[in-house]
Amino acid sequence: MRNSKISTLEEAILRSGLKDGMTVSFHHHFRGGDKVVCMVMDKLAEMGFKNLHLAASSLSDVHAPLIEHIKNGVITRISTSGLRGRLAEEISRGLMDEPVIFRSHGGRGSAIASGELHIDVAFLGASSSDELGNACGYSRSENAKSICGSLGYALPDARYADHVVVITDDLVEYPNMPKSISACDVESVVVVDSVGDSSKISAGAIRDSKNPRDILIAKQAAKVVINSGLFEDGFSIQTGTGGASLAVVKYLRESMLEKGIKASFALGGITAHMVKLHEEGLIGRLVDVQSFDKVAAESIKNDPFHQEVSSIEYASGMHKGSAVHALDIVILSALEVDTDFNVNVLVGSDGVIRGAIGGHQDTAADSRLSIIVCPLLRGRIPCVVPRVTTLITPGSSVDVVVTEYGIAVNPARPEIKERLEAAGLKIVDIQALAAKAESMTGTPDPLPFRDKVVGIMMNRDGRKLDEIHAIG
Amino acid sequence: MRNSKISTLEEAILRSGLKDGMTVSFHHHFRGGDKVVCMVMDKLAEMGFKNLHLAASSLSDVHAPLIEHIKNGVITRISTSGLRGRLAEEISRGLMDEPVIFRSHGGRGSAIASGELHIDVAFLGASSSDELGNACGYSRSENAKSICGSLGYALPDARYADHVVVITDDLVEYPNMPKSISACDVESVVVVDSVGDSSKISAGAIRDSKNPRDILIAKQAAKVVINSGLFEDGFSIQTGTGGASLAVVKYLRESMLEKGIKASFALGGITAHMVKLHEEGLIGRLVDVQSFDKVAAESIKNDPFHQEVSSIEYASGMHKGSAVHALDIVILSALEVDTDFNVNVLVGSDGVIRGAIGGHQDTAADSRLSIIVCPLLRGRIPCVVPRVTTLITPGSSVDVVVTEYGIAVNPARPEIKERLEAAGLKIVDIQALAAKAESMTGTPDPLPFRDKVVGIMMNRDGRKLDEIHAIG
Repeated sequence: MRNSKISTLEEAILRSGLKDGMTVSFHHHFRGGDKVVCMVMDKLAEMGFKNLHLAASSLSDVHAPLIEHIKNGVITRISTSGLRGRLAEEISRGLMDEPVIFRSHGGRGSAIASGELHIDVAFLGASSSDELGNACGYSRSENAKSICGSLGYALPDARYADHVVVITDDLVEYPNMPKSISACDVESVVVVDSVGDSSKISAGAIRDSKNPRDILIAKQAAKVVINSGLFEDGFSIQTGTGGASLAVVKYLRESMLEKGIKASFALGGITAHMVKLHEEGLIGRLVDVQSFDKVAAESIKNDPFHQEVSSIEYASGMHKGSAVHALDIVILSALEVDTDFNVNVLVGSDGVIRGAIGGHQDTAADSRLSIIVCPLLRGRIPCVVPRVTTLITPGSSVDVVVTEYGIAVNPARPEIKERLEAAGLKIVDIQALAAKAESMTGTPDPLPFRDKVVGIMMNRDGRKLDEIHAIG
Repeated sequence: MRNSKISTLEEAILRSGLKDGMTVSFHHHFRGGDKVVCMVMDKLAEMGFKNLHLAASSLSDVHAPLIEHIKNGVITRISTSGLRGRLAEEISRGLMDEPVIFRSHGGRGSAIASGELHIDVAFLGASSSDELGNACGYSRSENAKSICGSLGYALPDARYADHVVVITDDLVEYPNMPKSISACDVESVVVVDSVGDSSKISAGAIRDSKNPRDILIAKQAAKVVINSGLFEDGFSIQTGTGGASLAVVKYLRESMLEKGIKASFALGGITAHMVKLHEEGLIGRLVDVQSFDKVAAESIKNDPFHQEVSSIEYASGMHKGSAVHALDIVILSALEVDTDFNVNVLVGSDGVIRGAIGGHQDTAADSRLSIIVCPLLRGRIPCVVPRVTTLITPGSSVDVVVTEYGIAVNPARPEIKERLEAAGLKIVDIQALAAKAESMTGTPDPLPFRDKVVGIMMNRDGRKLDEIHAIG
């Protein structure tokens, strides 16, 4: 067609005006199946770019090949919400000179909107696009290949980046509407064989758990919700990643039916469970920044009440219209919780980075009730500890901790404690939980951290929250 | 709810930081039924503001009360796409010291995006909003009052204004999704009795014509489309305001059915006719910057393939992804066409402003074929003239002129002329049409224009195109 923006990846990069030292951005909607980050970074390396700042909404196991680009000086700075696998391991051991900047999803959105995180060129994978760049995370064509659903984490990049390149494996007829990314924000459209492996969008942290301990914790968390005083018609809810967290919705369903309670909306990463409740009429709207499985990705394509939101609209602290400001209840996972209710979801108890902040900080801070679901131990590793290895979500934002050994309530929320006790739930001191964990595993040796800083943990308001030191 | 942005209009104005000399903006989706502009300007006058720049997407008869605010120095500058009624009459006679700046819809979008038109505070009427400011031009509540459909002209204001106030008469439960305006772009929500009279959204320039001359012209224009060489499966079309223009779609329908031709999309102001063809499967997508009647406004609420676009996405010349860049055929009205195919849609042949540019410049420039439908005379006033009173759309963008006395083709498009002649259509010289008009009415006296400039006509690329002088 006239005015087509189709170009090769190399042409698109040349046209973008990208220079050494600039910032390139990516989203992580394909999660473990992502092919865009490595494809683009390989090309940038081949073209001789150096000293780039890689600003991804998150990075995972699949991005291990970036290690070579770091070693070769192609990438010298990274901003992300999460880091996993071999790349995380190497960075934890001191691979980079500059520390990685970790932001929550809402924090990243705010930083992009405020200009604190300025993106020169965004490379945004899309499940379909037309030749002008109207793009989204699903497709209505017969050639649909890589489906991811919501493109919520890509939308701030599309709006605020100086230059936007859409990369798709399914070029469709104009107009590709409804759209997520507007052609008016796009400079080039690159067609490739594959942008991602859809089968992996629900891998890792968002698999459905069959672990009996997770199920026990999920059932307890559902009881906390039901007896919290906030479980009433029109309530709203979000569940984070992690088997127990995701499973809570299943156990709420029965009570909702029994008591005739409907939720006004479910927020965040949306799963098949949420879609089911929505389709049954138990949840009014699905407000979706990220589709956690194929059922959710199909639903967002077909159901106008399953709405995509950007990470800014989802969780920005500086935008008082973001959805977390209307959120009642959030259920979140943790790698560690400490006796001040501080949470760590990023750094393992061995000092190695192995997680993602996601919307943890954002939802905990702005919801009316934040519930952490967390086993007391994982294998021989305590999860309720005297002090978190790394501070991700301040304890002042955390209300309840649910473990298989009992439920702890933040002393700042006595009314919640009262209601749960009245309902017959077993409330324990968080100190008692930490002591029990330690009694079962012994006092761990201090971790062999070095002076070198490998990561800086930002608070969602742009202030520094903690540092991650090199390990081993 | 927590974090509610509800406030009175006065509180919202105080909170906005508005100061004398600043720019306030409005959309015109309620057309002749708009109540927001006068309500807000009355309040600003009452609060003592002076020297404001009123930047509306368009103004009409209903805004006559602004005359007082101009006389009192509350409003000293106006930017708009159109001006009608008593306000237009007074401005034409020299009411204001500063000339009104006229921009096309795409030109306004570009100017807002580039910062050339900087909006300090946008006051955006909405048919529904929640307390955080998710707003749109329809409502799903039982209290739905003032429905206008697409909010396309308000979206650049929502995105780029420093401060956004949503004004609604239907406050609905959070989350009001799907949404047009995002709560993240909104600072205050003001609830009022009525933002507009829905019964008037299809008033004026967009009434369905029963005039036999309009019907004749519409039928001829349909023949031009059908024989233009562009009428093939997947074509796209827009019809402007004016009875003849709007009616063309009706007459295309039969040919589409007969030849098995479907349109990929219809663009622009969307009417009940367009909705009907879309629902019959003859038009794939409705790409809607403005809903021209209640049927269209209902359709955009219920049909995911009837999509709202901003005026930037619709018609910006500086955004190569705007929909006009993919548009095949546009059918537009005119007050005057001259022998160089220049068009005037703004200033009457009596020198008084009485129209609106709308997307005229934009669609004529970027479409593959622009067709002007225009009677040879209106009453005793020639419409095909030696020289337009005011230049709105340059003749280089205009391809065909259809009158009841024959069809003229721009000499720059010989292939179109050839095809139409081959189809047996009567092609005449534009000079012959002008001569015929003059022979029927006599040579008009020159208009009594004064030196004073009352309007400046901008081209969509931000250059000055023409001046409008005071009359009488």
